[in-house]
Amino acid sequence: MNDRKLVVIGGDAAGMSAASKVRRTQNKREIVVFERGGHTSFAACGMPYYVAGMVDDVDKLIARKPEVFRKNQNIDVRIHHEVVGIDIEKKEVRVRNLQDDVVFDEHYDDLLIATGAVPLAPDLPGMDAEGVFSLSVLQTGIDVYRYIEQNRPAKAVVVGGGYIGIEMAEALLHREMDVTLIDMAPQVMPTMDSDMAGIISDYMQKEGVAVGLEEKLEQLETDDDGRVSAVVTDKRKLEADLVITGLGVRPNTSIAREAGIGLGAADAVRVNKRMETSAPNVWAAGDCAESHHLVTGKQTFIALGTVANKHGLVAGTNISGGDAVFPGVVGTAITKFNELEIARTGLSEKEAKDLGIACKSTVIEARTRSGYYPGSGKISVKLCADEQDGRLLGGQIAGMQGAGKRIDTLATAITAGMTARNLMDLDLSYAPPFSPVWDPVQIAARRLMK
Amino acid sequence: MNDRKLVVIGGDAAGMSAASKVRRTQNKREIVVFERGGHTSFAACGMPYYVAGMVDDVDKLIARKPEVFRKNQNIDVRIHHEVVGIDIEKKEVRVRNLQDDVVFDEHYDDLLIATGAVPLAPDLPGMDAEGVFSLSVLQTGIDVYRYIEQNRPAKAVVVGGGYIGIEMAEALLHREMDVTLIDMAPQVMPTMDSDMAGIISDYMQKEGVAVGLEEKLEQLETDDDGRVSAVVTDKRKLEADLVITGLGVRPNTSIAREAGIGLGAADAVRVNKRMETSAPNVWAAGDCAESHHLVTGKQTFIALGTVANKHGLVAGTNISGGDAVFPGVVGTAITKFNELEIARTGLSEKEAKDLGIACKSTVIEARTRSGYYPGSGKISVKLCADEQDGRLLGGQIAGMQGAGKRIDTLATAITAGMTARNLMDLDLSYAPPFSPVWDPVQIAARRLMK
Repeated sequence: MNDRKLVVIGGDAAGMSAASKVRRTQNKREIVVFERGGHTSFAACGMPYYVAGMVDDVDKLIARKPEVFRKNQNIDVRIHHEVVGIDIEKKEVRVRNLQDDVVFDEHYDDLLIATGAVPLAPDLPGMDAEGVFSLSVLQTGIDVYRYIEQNRPAKAVVVGGGYIGIEMAEALLHREMDVTLIDMAPQVMPTMDSDMAGIISDYMQKEGVAVGLEEKLEQLETDDDGRVSAVVTDKRKLEADLVITGLGVRPNTSIAREAGIGLGAADAVRVNKRMETSAPNVWAAGDCAESHHLVTGKQTFIALGTVANKHGLVAGTNISGGDAVFPGVVGTAITKFNELEIARTGLSEKEAKDLGIACKSTVIEARTRSGYYPGSGKISVKLCADEQDGRLLGGQIAGMQGAGKRIDTLATAITAGMTARNLMDLDLSYAPPFSPVWDPVQIAARRLMK
Repeated sequence: MNDRKLVVIGGDAAGMSAASKVRRTQNKREIVVFERGGHTSFAACGMPYYVAGMVDDVDKLIARKPEVFRKNQNIDVRIHHEVVGIDIEKKEVRVRNLQDDVVFDEHYDDLLIATGAVPLAPDLPGMDAEGVFSLSVLQTGIDVYRYIEQNRPAKAVVVGGGYIGIEMAEALLHREMDVTLIDMAPQVMPTMDSDMAGIISDYMQKEGVAVGLEEKLEQLETDDDGRVSAVVTDKRKLEADLVITGLGVRPNTSIAREAGIGLGAADAVRVNKRMETSAPNVWAAGDCAESHHLVTGKQTFIALGTVANKHGLVAGTNISGGDAVFPGVVGTAITKFNELEIARTGLSEKEAKDLGIACKSTVIEARTRSGYYPGSGKISVKLCADEQDGRLLGGQIAGMQGAGKRIDTLATAITAGMTARNLMDLDLSYAPPFSPVWDPVQIAARRLMK
């Protein structure tokens, strides 16, 4: 197998972790990676903090550069190369060199599709104006940063209240702009329930972000230089010299679809647990591929760095002749806005109900540390359990320092199939600087049992 | 059952949580609590922080006062009353009122022994000198605080490098004393392995505590006023005007033993999972009672507030006619020294080996947050897994902000019987302010699998 040529489409987390895994296992085989952009293995999640000015050098967001892959791992990374087609029969990809526009075909024995996701951008007037950005690849982060440095925008509008929207609102506030965040939904954070989302938007407003809910973007106005000047919604017109849209992402799977490769959840590439697609010798991993959800048992689309890394490792193991299976997701995610830590795992109450699962839920408010210990702050925990068997379905957390990472305890408990009772019975850690005697997640479990 | 009289010996966490649980269930029965000291339900774990001057009012360490129990819950709490004997046949306890020295007998239908633990204090010359303290009940904390206020000690010696020793060393450093900590063992933190303990003692020294290991306390010298003036060890003489001993605790079970009630692990009261002792209608809970360990399957002695609260709740449920079982412990504990967070769960490598369990272990060093994110700090994680089946046996953590509470993920995984592979496969939370893409506990799991 050492003479089989591996082609990887996409040089970010999933693609490069797969390529690296194959190289560690099979030191002779040819590995070619085509990356449309100019960077490999960059920390997309770090972009808001770069824009905020908290990371002094953009290079710090790059785990490993193309030339390092080439030199140290003998992986032939070709940046600015876009794969525009896949021929499953011929085992070839069609590639365009974006620098000279030359198109060529490249043979593969094994192919990994790791094309990532692309931001959803509505087709509205003014979306292509200068000063309007959708964060996706590292270059966008660099562009936003430069735009801020050069234009010193004073009024920013963030469209969309999901993870990116919240993180960018924080970043722009940090850069001392007037920040307005609008979302057409009646709440921020669509992956959380409205009660928990309310805690988040209240906090954001208290910290100085004007939050407009049930407010729909209609168009963007520009000045004579083609630069954005205002955001027009169904309710009002907002002056703006910087607009960030964070409207979610969709899997980047058009070339897979055109090649006749099966798509699944949310049009992500359909894969089995070994990350194999419907086509022979074609694998998919990362934001472009679906995952199975351990709570629902269904296929789902989750675009997160943790998942992409695991996908890549599993695909790489199998491509190099091993036998690995992707363990599945429970939908764990975390972020923060200033001091408020925000996290979720499993199913929200709404998700459970939409799936027809009868569930009981509770929201408690407790303290992150013993009440008398300095720096003790509020923490709200929501738990949701199956009404039939008490099995935990999901958890949501919002609170001060130390709140967020408690989601991992819940993610672990949910993965293990624990009930609220089991959670309450856990021997969790306690000392005044870290927790009340009953950890907040256990206080929630105790309440849920009543 | 509502006319059965419940007598509780000991008015701290276990005793009062049991009494409260009984009261919530059975609003008419007579409940009498005898407490030797002057306080109920106090946060013993908070004492070092009170001594440090970080808690402005000692009352904040008291969850509920005797008069509140009496008024709001109709629980007859009698402080300064010491139970000196139990007559199982007659169903009576003999009580001494410590204020007037009157001794009387009190009948019970149900009896809960919640006598806690007492600090180990070696019988050495000078141990009773003024300025020498063993932290146990709240009054000792108050006494140390007063002693510091009145005498402004400049040189402190802490004897014993366990939790109390480390927390008191931090507290006294906070009070701007010269602090020396000695321990006769070759490491601090006996519940952790020497490699992890080395990280802790190195950090303590860097922060200004002189740590003397393999150094044995021989005697204390006093000045003409009977106040401590020096600590004499087998290696040297240390000037000292304040000495704190933290040499561990033993269960306070002499009256139980004298009554013929069976003792178990470390001479703690032997109990079954319902917290029933060998004597009819006699229950035990808290630091004086043993617990079963979920990893070893053996009975063990663990004196911690979390366990005491759970013990009390289980005992209270059963005393009031319910049916609850104590879920067992995995030995989770957490503390900190200045910025270093320290935690452990399950078995240490040494404990596993002492039990004859063949185990594999690894120590990794990672970062608490993404390397580029401000405030990212070092974290060391040690994992220990069964060599046969890969089942996780224990974990130890030492690291900067955010490190410690990660132990709960390990405690949950161990309780669920997960392997290192299962841990690596978990869908844990990631965002740059909270974690690297692979959480440090998963980095450790990945290393362990190799």
